[in-house]
Amino acid sequence: MEKIAVFPGSFDPITKGHESVIKRALPLFDRIVVAMGVNTTKNYLFPKEQRLEWLHQIFEGEPKIEVREYSQLTVDFCKEIGAKYLLRGLRNSLDFNYEKNIAHMNQAMEPDIETIFILTTPDLAAINASIVREIYKNKGNIQQFIPQKINIPQP
Amino acid sequence: MEKIAVFPGSFDPITKGHESVIKRALPLFDRIVVAMGVNTTKNYLFPKEQRLEWLHQIFEGEPKIEVREYSQLTVDFCKEIGAKYLLRGLRNSLDFNYEKNIAHMNQAMEPDIETIFILTTPDLAAINASIVREIYKNKGNIQQFIPQKINIPQP
Amino acid sequence: MEKIAVFPGSFDPITKGHESVIKRALPLFDRIVVAMGVNTTKNYLFPKEQRLEWLHQIFEGEPKIEVREYSQLTVDFCKEIGAKYLLRGLRNSLDFNYEKNIAHMNQAMEPDIETIFILTTPDLAAINASIVREIYKNKGNIQQFIPQKINIPQP
Amino acid sequence: MEKIAVFPGSFDPITKGHESVIKRALPLFDRIVVAMGVNTTKNYLFPKEQRLEWLHQIFEGEPKIEVREYSQLTVDFCKEIGAKYLLRGLRNSLDFNYEKNIAHMNQAMEPDIETIFILTTPDLAAINASIVREIYKNKGNIQQFIPQKINIPQP
Amino acid sequence: MEKIAVFPGSFDPITKGHESVIKRALPLFDRIVVAMGVNTTKNYLFPKEQRLEWLHQIFEGEPKIEVREYSQLTVDFCKEIGAKYLLRGLRNSLDFNYEKNIAHMNQAMEPDIETIFILTTPDLAAINASIVREIYKNKGNIQQFIPQKINIPQP
Amino acid sequence: MEKIAVFPGSFDPITKGHESVIKRALPLFDRIVVAMGVNTTKNYLFPKEQRLEWLHQIFEGEPKIEVREYSQLTVDFCKEIGAKYLLRGLRNSLDFNYEKNIAHMNQAMEPDIETIFILTTPDLAAINASIVREIYKNKGNIQQFIPQKINIPQP
Repeated sequence: MEKIAVFPGSFDPITKGHESVIKRALPLFDRIVVAMGVNTTKNYLFPKEQRLEWLHQIFEGEPKIEVREYSQLTVDFCKEIGAKYLLRGLRNSLDFNYEKNIAHMNQAMEPDIETIFILTTPDLAAINASIVREIYKNKGNIQQFIPQKINIPQP
Repeated sequence: MEKIAVFPGSFDPITKGHESVIKRALPLFDRIVVAMGVNTTKNYLFPKEQRLEWLHQIFEGEPKIEVREYSQLTVDFCKEIGAKYLLRGLRNSLDFNYEKNIAHMNQAMEPDIETIFILTTPDLAAINASIVREIYKNKGNIQQFIPQKINIPQP
Repeated sequence: MEKIAVFPGSFDPITKGHESVIKRALPLFDRIVVAMGVNTTKNYLFPKEQRLEWLHQIFEGEPKIEVREYSQLTVDFCKEIGAKYLLRGLRNSLDFNYEKNIAHMNQAMEPDIETIFILTTPDLAAINASIVREIYKNKGNIQQFIPQKINIPQP
Repeated sequence: MEKIAVFPGSFDPITKGHESVIKRALPLFDRIVVAMGVNTTKNYLFPKEQRLEWLHQIFEGEPKIEVREYSQLTVDFCKEIGAKYLLRGLRNSLDFNYEKNIAHMNQAMEPDIETIFILTTPDLAAINASIVREIYKNKGNIQQFIPQKINIPQP
Repeated sequence: MEKIAVFPGSFDPITKGHESVIKRALPLFDRIVVAMGVNTTKNYLFPKEQRLEWLHQIFEGEPKIEVREYSQLTVDFCKEIGAKYLLRGLRNSLDFNYEKNIAHMNQAMEPDIETIFILTTPDLAAINASIVREIYKNKGNIQQFIPQKINIPQP
Repeated sequence: MEKIAVFPGSFDPITKGHESVIKRALPLFDRIVVAMGVNTTKNYLFPKEQRLEWLHQIFEGEPKIEVREYSQLTVDFCKEIGAKYLLRGLRNSLDFNYEKNIAHMNQAMEPDIETIFILTTPDLAAINASIVREIYKNKGNIQQFIPQKINIPQP
């Protein structure tokens, strides 16, 4: 059976941390679906089309990676596409406590879907999308925190 | 002197975790007041009347449990009704750090009111009202996370 | 039914933190048994007789507090004396994670025994018996960290 | 070279915890700039002018402390005024994880600026500006949580 | 290329938590090597032969699981047998901080070996081998904390 | 008045993490005393003379750094040499909780001595002397975890 993992996120914006986790986990799976959750009640800094385009730019040329958007519950999306794994990166113990709750509630809803964690590498562990957004809003340069293939000019 | 504990919360919605903590703590007190805080500046997912009705449904038949709403400071409500104890459940270390700050500030304001903690049981420790709300908003089934006596149909 | 709590520890030595937790929890119970665990394979800094004598000194005159020693499993001791509650103090999130494991394993062994936690007050939260022992071994004065009723001269 | 530290914050309101950290760190630096960040997209409880006035009241008479407001990125403000140090207080492990991320991202942007941490004293460690705001909104008395030199009447 | 994971431990004794992590991770790998580290300077509660026998008993009949012992550095053992993955279970944030350090140091030594984490299920998250040993030493019944296939009579 | 900081440790062995914290904190102080605590009841992996020699090798040529050994309480050593600051590095929240207790107890004993913390840089944050010792005992190469100026051959 094909081993499919979903890497869910809002990617507002995608960071070097996300990119690294996805690439390092790639050998473990047959396919990784980078899944951008769309939540019409949330406010995003970057428009949906822009965020999706960045994902396509970064992962084009990686045949095992597929970029998708979804608006249902994450575990429902997994079931729909036949994915048995959720992939998540862990940076610090704050992340861990938060991710643990999500994973256990997902497991309660869909016992067949397993969440797999890998650590962010130390040099990327401080990169946090909400701090990146703050820096951007304060006209700082976020280029070093986002994947090299994309370019977000200073506002 | 009657041992009265207040279990405060917004109960948006009440979860199996809340219910379990209240019931397990019941033998320790003469009365537990399940106190729904009403804050006019907050946005709730479920209307006040609905949340209150659920509390009544769940705890009717328990003579030692009383359901109340309040809009003042929690320690002021405790004083008003003569409660010397605040009851809180602890799930993980995130909870703990947050609850510790609240409890210490309450103690600074009212040294006579003691906060008593019991642990959520392992099977319920992942249930988090804000994740439950997210699931509900994404049209997931939250029935397994809320008390059996109430029924919240999928939206 | 009488509400009996066991406050277990090695009390090597008893600290102001222990004393404060026991006294603040006293109104909640009919009786608190301060139970000194005796483990023949552990090395203690202070001899058993000394530690027990300190406990007696500190709590004499408190009719609701009883000092005991025990050498079996803590939950077995609770059952033996009819105690339905274990009382523990929490200082910080390290404590919390450790105590949570113990409490959940105790609950697995004896579902009828509930662990009740109260917070150490902020001024006493840093007092840690193993650091107190280190200070004593390094000839520091530990008097401010232990209950006023006892006196441990500098070594 | 003059040792200048920036202590950044929104000070909504300034608490006794902030004041204590600044004063205790004072001997270490030649100058501490208490820098109120102004973010036009955030909602504050107290108006900017009020918050700034409080800072001036509290620190007047301390020749080594200067009060400033700024609206750029914190590290950009540091560079502008020639500060090589950021000063932060730490209360608990939640703070720590959050501050660690900020400090590492600041270091990535400006490797020459070092963040220096000191601990909040135990009696002030529970004071959290967002809980203080909640208390104020619920008509509680916050006077014991804010510096003695200022007076915020109950709303 | 064959996907081989090493699950290292001292298994003194193996717990239900270990067993669950291994079995749930099994679909992800072609082979899992349950590797008992032998450290001649450590004191174990149960003799090496006993611990190894338990591992064989538990995993016999699982063609993808192999039981081994090793005495070198864990990453050196991985290289020796051609394993590119280390598998670890995570229970709480204490575990996480400890495992993160180990994983990052392993990565520094062998960048090609990736550590994969899965969460312990909530019902098993409190099981801690050192607490299990304490219970056993205090003549408690540890049967419910260890895999069903093995039997450790009360001492 | 001269600003003197003590950086205490057992340095068994000194790591790149220690070295980095000391060097980055150097501009803040007039003098840093790297103080090796000698505790006759502890077992060290490397002999005292060796550890001391390493410290001398690493910091020779740094006129503001002095290497000392001490056997009394750390705060007593600080008083003896007129140091008003203790310097500590922080890696993660485990460190933080531990260091917070130590710092608060030191402050209780000597209110005039302030503990100053800086963060370990992300690339060095996983280096933990006890894991380094484990690697060494298991015949691993620890060279990348210790300062470049010293050389510890594989055992």
